[in-house]
Amino acid sequence: MISKIKLKELAAYRLQKRCDEEAVFVVEGPKMAAEAIASGASIRTVCATREWMLANGEWRMASGEFYEVSQTELERLSGQKNPNQVWMLVERRMENGKQRAEDGKLVLALDHIQDPGNMGTLMRTADWFGVRHIVCSHDTVGCFNPKVVQATMGAIFRTWVEYVDLPQWLASCGMPVYGASLHGEPLKADNKLHRQGVLLIGNESRGISPEAMAAVTHPVLIPNLGGTAESLNASVAAGILIYELMR
Amino acid sequence: MISKIKLKELAAYRLQKRCDEEAVFVVEGPKMAAEAIASGASIRTVCATREWMLANGEWRMASGEFYEVSQTELERLSGQKNPNQVWMLVERRMENGKQRAEDGKLVLALDHIQDPGNMGTLMRTADWFGVRHIVCSHDTVGCFNPKVVQATMGAIFRTWVEYVDLPQWLASCGMPVYGASLHGEPLKADNKLHRQGVLLIGNESRGISPEAMAAVTHPVLIPNLGGTAESLNASVAAGILIYELMR
Repeated sequence: MISKIKLKELAAYRLQKRCDEEAVFVVEGPKMAAEAIASGASIRTVCATREWMLANGEWRMASGEFYEVSQTELERLSGQKNPNQVWMLVERRMENGKQRAEDGKLVLALDHIQDPGNMGTLMRTADWFGVRHIVCSHDTVGCFNPKVVQATMGAIFRTWVEYVDLPQWLASCGMPVYGASLHGEPLKADNKLHRQGVLLIGNESRGISPEAMAAVTHPVLIPNLGGTAESLNASVAAGILIYELMR
Repeated sequence: MISKIKLKELAAYRLQKRCDEEAVFVVEGPKMAAEAIASGASIRTVCATREWMLANGEWRMASGEFYEVSQTELERLSGQKNPNQVWMLVERRMENGKQRAEDGKLVLALDHIQDPGNMGTLMRTADWFGVRHIVCSHDTVGCFNPKVVQATMGAIFRTWVEYVDLPQWLASCGMPVYGASLHGEPLKADNKLHRQGVLLIGNESRGISPEAMAAVTHPVLIPNLGGTAESLNASVAAGILIYELMR
């Protein structure tokens, strides 16, 4: 059971500003809740239906609040169209993420990625290939945006996402910077890329900004074999380039 | 100017059923409108703001209706949150698509893809690599769904999408069938794949169905280098596999 006052208090976390102020983020649905638990994240509050509680009875919160809610109450908390069983408030704990970042491996750099679905998919793809460190321009969508969190499919708990002055960061990182560009070199076995370096992906419409492009040491191109399409989706392009860089 | 009666008549095409009955689809925004015009598609109706008409003054409709509309009227027609300048009703003309399909090249097969954004991105990725023929299970989202159309970024005009009994089609296609599977062989230079064949991508949650999997001759795997993520996004996985098959 949850009181009306408590429900109202928690519903306020639908506002991103409120989450930012307290350095928490919202996690929803059984899949993401299981990822949060498995990651050892610090879970502040759980609101769940009886269905979820029965299926997850073996799990006891070490700390934090727990409330059983009805479907209607869950809808009040959730920003989703069809909220699914469980809603959690999780601490951001960026420092833990920093400890997980590995030096000398591929870093993914994002220049003004706008779409939350793309951002989450980029994090998910990086996670798949073991790329744990993601550096973003300040105008890239926030990684704790609820739509981003859901699209990561758990990668939010395993990647370290930093927001920086990107052109400056790239210029001083001391690593080769591979930038996806229409004027780059096609990826081929004979210009094999290195594992150590930065892969830079640009905005969905405008690509890499001129300021960030100035720091690119290796412009790379995915061959446009069809010859008719203007571009690839940013997460698909990143997936192909990470695959090529890591293989 | 558009009459209230005409506006009401056209607003009915927000219903997918109405579009299906008349074999038309809705195209929105200047980018997609330009693609429709460039493709030579048969455009039945155009509703556009003065802004779009002024910027596209050189273009005259060979046939079809043309209406100038206000932003409010455009919002009435559109299924989008922020409709942008132009709304079009375009004939499906599947036969033209069929003529564009090329025998003997890579075919993309989709088994129960549900998300319209994924579907559109899959079509866009195929288009980039020159894969023009896409074969879908009947339970895959319709390629003329407005969200799919927008996510294709124009590929809707350049790809031939068929809906079939997929397990039967795969079993009788006479080509090698590469299926993305967790039990496949990693893609490597030494097990180089062929250009001619079918690449099969499964449902976002459940992967390839057992019925379709029975027709897979070459199960393939994208190495999970991170070791923590459960899966890749369906369009990202397809992008990497098409890239590998076509290179």
